[in-house]
Amino acid sequence: MKVLAINAGSSSLKYQLFEMPSETVLCSGIAERIGMNDGIFSLKVNGEKFEEVLEIPNHSVAVELLLKWLIDHKIISDYNEIQGVGHRVVHGGEHFAASAMLTEENIQLIEDVAELAPLHNPANLTGIYAFKKLLPDAVAVAVFDTAFHQTLAEEAYMYSTPYEWYEKYAVRKYGFHGTSHQYVSAEAARLIGKAPEDAKVIVCHLGNGGSLSAVKNGKSVDTTMGFTPLAGIPMGTRSGDIDPAIIPFIMEKTGQTAAEVVDMLNKKSGFLGVSGLSSDARDIEAGINEGNHRAELAAFIYAKRIAEYIAAYHVYLEGADVIAFTAGIGENAPYIRKCVTRRLGVLGVKLDEAVNESIRGKEAIISTDDSAIKIAVVPTNEELVIARDTLAFMN
Amino acid sequence: MKVLAINAGSSSLKYQLFEMPSETVLCSGIAERIGMNDGIFSLKVNGEKFEEVLEIPNHSVAVELLLKWLIDHKIISDYNEIQGVGHRVVHGGEHFAASAMLTEENIQLIEDVAELAPLHNPANLTGIYAFKKLLPDAVAVAVFDTAFHQTLAEEAYMYSTPYEWYEKYAVRKYGFHGTSHQYVSAEAARLIGKAPEDAKVIVCHLGNGGSLSAVKNGKSVDTTMGFTPLAGIPMGTRSGDIDPAIIPFIMEKTGQTAAEVVDMLNKKSGFLGVSGLSSDARDIEAGINEGNHRAELAAFIYAKRIAEYIAAYHVYLEGADVIAFTAGIGENAPYIRKCVTRRLGVLGVKLDEAVNESIRGKEAIISTDDSAIKIAVVPTNEELVIARDTLAFMN
Repeated sequence: MKVLAINAGSSSLKYQLFEMPSETVLCSGIAERIGMNDGIFSLKVNGEKFEEVLEIPNHSVAVELLLKWLIDHKIISDYNEIQGVGHRVVHGGEHFAASAMLTEENIQLIEDVAELAPLHNPANLTGIYAFKKLLPDAVAVAVFDTAFHQTLAEEAYMYSTPYEWYEKYAVRKYGFHGTSHQYVSAEAARLIGKAPEDAKVIVCHLGNGGSLSAVKNGKSVDTTMGFTPLAGIPMGTRSGDIDPAIIPFIMEKTGQTAAEVVDMLNKKSGFLGVSGLSSDARDIEAGINEGNHRAELAAFIYAKRIAEYIAAYHVYLEGADVIAFTAGIGENAPYIRKCVTRRLGVLGVKLDEAVNESIRGKEAIISTDDSAIKIAVVPTNEELVIARDTLAFMN
Repeated sequence: MKVLAINAGSSSLKYQLFEMPSETVLCSGIAERIGMNDGIFSLKVNGEKFEEVLEIPNHSVAVELLLKWLIDHKIISDYNEIQGVGHRVVHGGEHFAASAMLTEENIQLIEDVAELAPLHNPANLTGIYAFKKLLPDAVAVAVFDTAFHQTLAEEAYMYSTPYEWYEKYAVRKYGFHGTSHQYVSAEAARLIGKAPEDAKVIVCHLGNGGSLSAVKNGKSVDTTMGFTPLAGIPMGTRSGDIDPAIIPFIMEKTGQTAAEVVDMLNKKSGFLGVSGLSSDARDIEAGINEGNHRAELAAFIYAKRIAEYIAAYHVYLEGADVIAFTAGIGENAPYIRKCVTRRLGVLGVKLDEAVNESIRGKEAIISTDDSAIKIAVVPTNEELVIARDTLAFMN
């Protein structure tokens, strides 16, 4: 059975086609600059990449292109071979604690929570509608970034803000990157020889966006992102948690609106804001090697905040078994992994520095044998979770 | 030598008169409702309290009243017996890492940073000016809430926000309650038989406002309050840290300004906001005993967040020696101390529940003998720190 995993953005559509249940990736690619004259469509298959610049007026055209290219490249011979389409949906609000069939009712619920993710859910929905039109018989499934964190206890998801903000406006911690936290926590458990249902895992999903989660017996019990993906640890361009009173202070100083200040917290902060160099952890490391003080400061603030959350989650989990690093930085930046874990010495956490240096983008244990908490690198695979969850509804 | 410790608010002036260096409290009291027709002046001496309702048009009149009452009650026979006046000043910005003589230059520096504490510094200054006028020969000293935290490392005080916010507008973590953290950390060290210069202490200052600090060898290395006293743990009416993106979301929902929303985070959140009952921890505990779920939720969120910071500071200190509870709640609420410390089991922290129940408002160790980190109750005494620091400039 062939299953597509789809991640639709406002002007892009990423796809990966799986043969299931063998979980073989048949091809992948992306439609970019949708809505512009010079759109780009690409496809990777068998190690080869094909690309074309052309007008892609909307997401339906992107899906038509995708299906045509799949046939042209002889990956499928008929549209109906694609029996399942799984869609990444950023926000499921409190409605969705698991992936869900895209029934009329569920699509309406996704529309209803769109105000909680105004940049993402409407974009995700354009992909959903395009496939509904072109592959009406395929099983369509939504896989939510928030669903895995719906197991948080009330004390973990409620803010200490006026209660009516929750009742009237659904203001609470939702958390994001759920498919990644779910996948990586389970893989990390297995890597240290434990069943996911019997393991306590701290996942550090460190990409351009970043979040940590505390996962107990397969369930998320806490996570760093909050009502929006701005909260928690600093990121490439995001501040993470700050004193909220900074917002009106900066508004008064600069004449900006609250939305503009929060936009700076989302786009001009984090690595970029502190270093003044770049939002990319590789540039930060290069800056440090060149003696750039603000690059080092950006990395130290980052590592400090991650270590603090690990410490807090270790306590909340009543003892973590493994700390798992994943996503772009977590998988590929030994320097950051070292910066974080060397702060955890008092917990008996010991990094094997030589092994750590050698590991990029592959699964490995990077702690010493006598480390009180194991440290692991686990490449994330959100597309695979989407394909698996879609398959579950097809069976 | 007689030394006054003064805490001037916008419409109040609290005082405590010490005989130094014996540190004997000669009397204390408060002028309230300054600027209104029905001001209240009170004085406590030898266990007796005297009070009068009268018009107190401004802080100078309050100081005149104070000096007159001191003579009338035969506590002093001449104004000039008061050789030192120490003033609490909330914000010293980056100028003051210690208490300072109130020279013209230093008063100007306090004026300069007033925009960082617009509700507090101007009020503190009214007290300073009133005493300068009436006791021009007394040694006048400013004792800052922020000074003790000026030892934080850059990675601890810098936010991951645009760097120019720091350069242009001095946006950084300052921290508050510094005199309390300084006093309590030193007392807690001595209580466990260590020199303050050789101890690692986590201070939980839990009052209507609340903050934690990590103190290493007598120096603050981290604290929970931030640019303003809104940040960190939840409090009686304050939210502590939240996802900053909640502010524009609530503005759009309610039509409030950013300042109004932040005002709700300061005055309608915390215990009050979550429970809907009260900002007072005693009412929260009573609510829990009556089965009020939201009261319990408020306490659990509070305890969770405090425990998270303790965990983070334990790691940052590379192993804390003692966790010290102080201020209204910290000194007098065994229930809250239990809620917090029972979450720290994985660190080997063990509360002696019977001893904990028996301790209110006095110094004691409340952990079991085999607790990996000691737990202490240490009543705070900010007035004494003010008097001591003032004495230091008189000698």
